[in-house]
Amino acid sequence: VTDNLRSDISWVGVDWGSSNFRAYALDAERNILDSTATNAGMRVVEQRNYEAVLLQQIQHWLPLHGKLLVLMSGMVGARQGWQEASYKAVPCVSFTASDVMPIETQSQRIRAFIAPGVSQQNPPDVMRGEETQIFGWLEQQPDFTGTVCLPGTHSKWVTVSDGEIKQFRTYITGEMFSLLCEQSVLKHSTQSTEWSRHSFSNAVRESALAQHDAADILGGLFSTRAADLLHGVSASRAKAALSARLIHAECDAALRLFASREETETPIVLIGDAALTELYEEVLVHAKQQVHSIAAPTATLLGLQGVANAILNKELFHA
Amino acid sequence: VTDNLRSDISWVGVDWGSSNFRAYALDAERNILDSTATNAGMRVVEQRNYEAVLLQQIQHWLPLHGKLLVLMSGMVGARQGWQEASYKAVPCVSFTASDVMPIETQSQRIRAFIAPGVSQQNPPDVMRGEETQIFGWLEQQPDFTGTVCLPGTHSKWVTVSDGEIKQFRTYITGEMFSLLCEQSVLKHSTQSTEWSRHSFSNAVRESALAQHDAADILGGLFSTRAADLLHGVSASRAKAALSARLIHAECDAALRLFASREETETPIVLIGDAALTELYEEVLVHAKQQVHSIAAPTATLLGLQGVANAILNKELFHA
Repeated sequence: VTDNLRSDISWVGVDWGSSNFRAYALDAERNILDSTATNAGMRVVEQRNYEAVLLQQIQHWLPLHGKLLVLMSGMVGARQGWQEASYKAVPCVSFTASDVMPIETQSQRIRAFIAPGVSQQNPPDVMRGEETQIFGWLEQQPDFTGTVCLPGTHSKWVTVSDGEIKQFRTYITGEMFSLLCEQSVLKHSTQSTEWSRHSFSNAVRESALAQHDAADILGGLFSTRAADLLHGVSASRAKAALSARLIHAECDAALRLFASREETETPIVLIGDAALTELYEEVLVHAKQQVHSIAAPTATLLGLQGVANAILNKELFHA
Repeated sequence: VTDNLRSDISWVGVDWGSSNFRAYALDAERNILDSTATNAGMRVVEQRNYEAVLLQQIQHWLPLHGKLLVLMSGMVGARQGWQEASYKAVPCVSFTASDVMPIETQSQRIRAFIAPGVSQQNPPDVMRGEETQIFGWLEQQPDFTGTVCLPGTHSKWVTVSDGEIKQFRTYITGEMFSLLCEQSVLKHSTQSTEWSRHSFSNAVRESALAQHDAADILGGLFSTRAADLLHGVSASRAKAALSARLIHAECDAALRLFASREETETPIVLIGDAALTELYEEVLVHAKQQVHSIAAPTATLLGLQGVANAILNKELFHA
């Protein structure tokens, strides 16, 4: 990073989740000048170490004079995170500068804020980070009415209209996959470092045929183990089949719940890591849905941009 | 154990599962003279140590002269067990003396056999131990036609008629409960050493109202965590609610699959540990089912009795 580039940095956007830290240095024209990532997510960072992790990751971006604006979203604002940021209740529009929580830091070289999460009273549900990505999508498509799906450890399905998050539901699909692969009786049949996209596609085709019991996770999964005991099945194939089975169960249940979709031509918007959204895309296309995928970082930064502008413009922040 | 009692022992029945070892000393008239139990199940016993564990548990029953007949069923016959016993395919009647597998032992004081498991090709499924309990029930009710449910780590639902196991399905409900309570994000809300039967009953009533999404485990469970984050929920209440939710999901899916049940007056037969079958009984009664519960040890011993008699009577076994 040259001093030249360093002086062009206008603000830093951070997506700090359970498993990953990703930071982006942006200029005043929304261009990404530089980025950094580590797996120092909330699960592994101790509460008192958040600032140190952040500074270590972005120190080469710090200005020679003055303070750098750092806007963060995600599990960094959870109870087990750096500092608990509040929730905004649904229905909920994009955040403003007054919504983000200022964090006291030891360092005098940053001014840090954490975005709130979004909560729903009935049924009880919460999100942290995904809302920022949805607001980013609404920056691009302010009139969007439809369903947004954000695959992940705890996938979110969200109804959006009138520029608001209306309601949502969390599916613990990613976590369930890890638990079953690594900790359950299925591990004897599914432990593999390989990933077979081909096996995944085959399993999607097969599970689409058996759609009637897609939701019966408790009853359907043991057959993975039994098939291996009776016939022998390669671990990479069994692992891909388990993944397809779970994603199919999630999509099947969600499509049922977000049923009005069937009458619309609006694609489901998928926001997430490319490797994962690809899998959801395949399952949803098999379920006769149209999809439109967006990379998570783009969405996060667009979602934080408005707040960054407001803080920078209103000179709430003195560089 | 007196020498007098010792000489009355005719054979020993053993139920050796993943988590538990239970042995019973029986006389020639089917009376239980003594019993012993430990948590030295398949999960913790190393393959070469099975005989030592068995002998330690039953040494006070060994006859002063000759050999003691020991009949075992359960995961002791699994690939990770003492020695892999074969499967018999459905449809499948009670075992005969030629079905059980003789085990080579170091000790000259026992003659040990392991009962086979039962397998199903399509959909692939297996059981070990439960089949013996079902055969025990058929000893009492040879003309039984209906559904047997055996709750546990891997619950089995089984269709029985003409004295045969016709088909079955495994639900990994017990294992799922442990994984979610101990390893998932829900652990922050559900870890409690208390068990609140009252909370379980409340949750059963509530989940019966929300029957339409009973099967949606991936989507329904996160609300346990969210409710705690938003309102605070005691861990013992959340744990009981999770248990009710999972058992309800299992019973709901199984009742759908074993649908012809609705036309019959025959109760569902529940076989298992009393503490667990009680919970299933409550959920099933809420789902307007009739149930008839039997203790697992009784069923196991009745299921092994026929084989024991055959071996003893045919003098295949020389005491």
